[in-house]
Amino acid sequence: MKAFQVTAPYDYAITDVDRPVAAPGEVLVRVAYAGICGSDMHIIHGDNAFVRFPRITGHEFAGVIDAVGEGVDGIAVGDRVCVDPVVNCGHCYPCRVGRPNVCTDMEVVGVHRNGGFEEVVNIPAANAHRLPEHLGLDAAALVEPYTIAANVLDRMQPVSGDRLLIFGAGVIGLTILQMAQALGIEDITVTDVLEARLATARELGATRTFNGQQQDVEAEVETLTQGEGMPLIADAACVPALLPQMLRIASAAGRIGLLGFNPTPSDLVQLEVIKKELTLVGSRLNNRKFPEVIELMATGRLDTQGLVSHRIALADMPEAIEMLDHQPEKARKVLIDIGA
Amino acid sequence: MKAFQVTAPYDYAITDVDRPVAAPGEVLVRVAYAGICGSDMHIIHGDNAFVRFPRITGHEFAGVIDAVGEGVDGIAVGDRVCVDPVVNCGHCYPCRVGRPNVCTDMEVVGVHRNGGFEEVVNIPAANAHRLPEHLGLDAAALVEPYTIAANVLDRMQPVSGDRLLIFGAGVIGLTILQMAQALGIEDITVTDVLEARLATARELGATRTFNGQQQDVEAEVETLTQGEGMPLIADAACVPALLPQMLRIASAAGRIGLLGFNPTPSDLVQLEVIKKELTLVGSRLNNRKFPEVIELMATGRLDTQGLVSHRIALADMPEAIEMLDHQPEKARKVLIDIGA
Repeated sequence: MKAFQVTAPYDYAITDVDRPVAAPGEVLVRVAYAGICGSDMHIIHGDNAFVRFPRITGHEFAGVIDAVGEGVDGIAVGDRVCVDPVVNCGHCYPCRVGRPNVCTDMEVVGVHRNGGFEEVVNIPAANAHRLPEHLGLDAAALVEPYTIAANVLDRMQPVSGDRLLIFGAGVIGLTILQMAQALGIEDITVTDVLEARLATARELGATRTFNGQQQDVEAEVETLTQGEGMPLIADAACVPALLPQMLRIASAAGRIGLLGFNPTPSDLVQLEVIKKELTLVGSRLNNRKFPEVIELMATGRLDTQGLVSHRIALADMPEAIEMLDHQPEKARKVLIDIGA
Repeated sequence: MKAFQVTAPYDYAITDVDRPVAAPGEVLVRVAYAGICGSDMHIIHGDNAFVRFPRITGHEFAGVIDAVGEGVDGIAVGDRVCVDPVVNCGHCYPCRVGRPNVCTDMEVVGVHRNGGFEEVVNIPAANAHRLPEHLGLDAAALVEPYTIAANVLDRMQPVSGDRLLIFGAGVIGLTILQMAQALGIEDITVTDVLEARLATARELGATRTFNGQQQDVEAEVETLTQGEGMPLIADAACVPALLPQMLRIASAAGRIGLLGFNPTPSDLVQLEVIKKELTLVGSRLNNRKFPEVIELMATGRLDTQGLVSHRIALADMPEAIEMLDHQPEKARKVLIDIGA
């Protein structure tokens, strides 16, 4: 069967691989649709310290159960599912305190073990989430990116009436924008340096946008909030140099959600953090957010319109990767029709 | 009447001042005992940006109600009270979301308005907390420093079985140590660079101590936690350069509580924060912690033994300040017997 396999940094191909076998406790998923994520690109670039090659990547996907392994209950051949990529140990400190997404012995589907960029993939049965009848498999392949948004927003603990500022209007920023609307956040500002991205943010419902290169974001926030500052700030730009600004524009009791895997230190002025009693939270993957996101999508409360820019066949992945590398402004989410 | 007044940085004296009047909504407190805090020293040094001179400082005190202003209910002359120094507006964003201790229009007793280093002080009636019969006024003057400890621990959200590491065994570190024990945290490590302070921490119940100059704290934590890292880290050392180490030794899902009003930036490696999904929280003053701390003290669950090193008269304050400035290792909490 066909798979997209990365053999080494910048060395990838659509190749023939053996069909996997469902070990005890596992299921096989015949993949229908899968999305390409920035972290797939990091693996291709050799920028992911966790991955071992060769690896079939892809952690955003949905499909149909093709086989069930020994001891698997509650899920059957033919069930339509999407897949939570977080495989956790259940015993370590974060698992014990309900934070499986930072399990110290974690295996992420598509990173530590093979993922969804192949026709059939084996995954632990517990990671397959059955889909409501009227949620399409193409939409269901988007559940995982929206769980990233749901996770960071949950970590930031919004309360009624809170304003939100999103740094970055790339795919992650846009999913946070859409998820925030689904969760009832009414006043959402998005800042980026690319006008085209800001236009997309407005198209997808941003209350307002600022161009961080052309406008003084600090002054704009000052005016907008009448000096109170911004209660919720989500960093989907992931530029370490922006943190000092975030600290300055945060309101007292503000929460800042961080998503960037960047080793370059940011300047953290503790005076700002203590004076305003700020909360800074990291957010990684998702903490059991699949049921909530599936429900929000199935009920239409989460509007995912506009996220997907390209639908391609598995065979076209190398070409799509070229585009994402060299003309990223052309793409939002690229969805691969693997079942085609 | 007598008061300790700071007229300008490094310019202070015991002086005669007019007895204050209780405005509507205020009460007068005849101060019995007051504690000297590091932040009183910052005011004396001119290191507090909020203070305006001349100022009668002191925000840790207890005493007896001497008069009640117009419109004051529920508190009467003769009531024994201690005083929450946080006077908040009730309308701004942090007040609206239940975070009065970072009110944007806050007046802190002893900072923005006159405090407890005087024989009689006027305060808003709502800031006076009545004391249980068997809680002494000397003990009650310690409620405020323990609310600082209660606040940072609450911000860090300990869960059952969590280990705690405290950086710094000065007065704030010691109050956190004692409060953590009162809250049921069983495994508490304290690190400092002064052996005498570490001995005090052990005397007050620390499970173990590390000398940060003689021992490799990262290796010690690694061994102690079998590689899992430290779930709770409280920074009562307030040295900005220590933050990178705290990020490295924190466990996945760890929480770091920051207390230092330092403008020097710390290096924050976001990779550490996201990889382990850490939470960094500032903690300032206290968020309505007086009832809880009074109850913990009155029931004996909070053991405050060993915190006070000196009891002095108001007239001896200049001498005590000299000691705190030049021989800080000699003192823990200095308590002023103002009613004597």
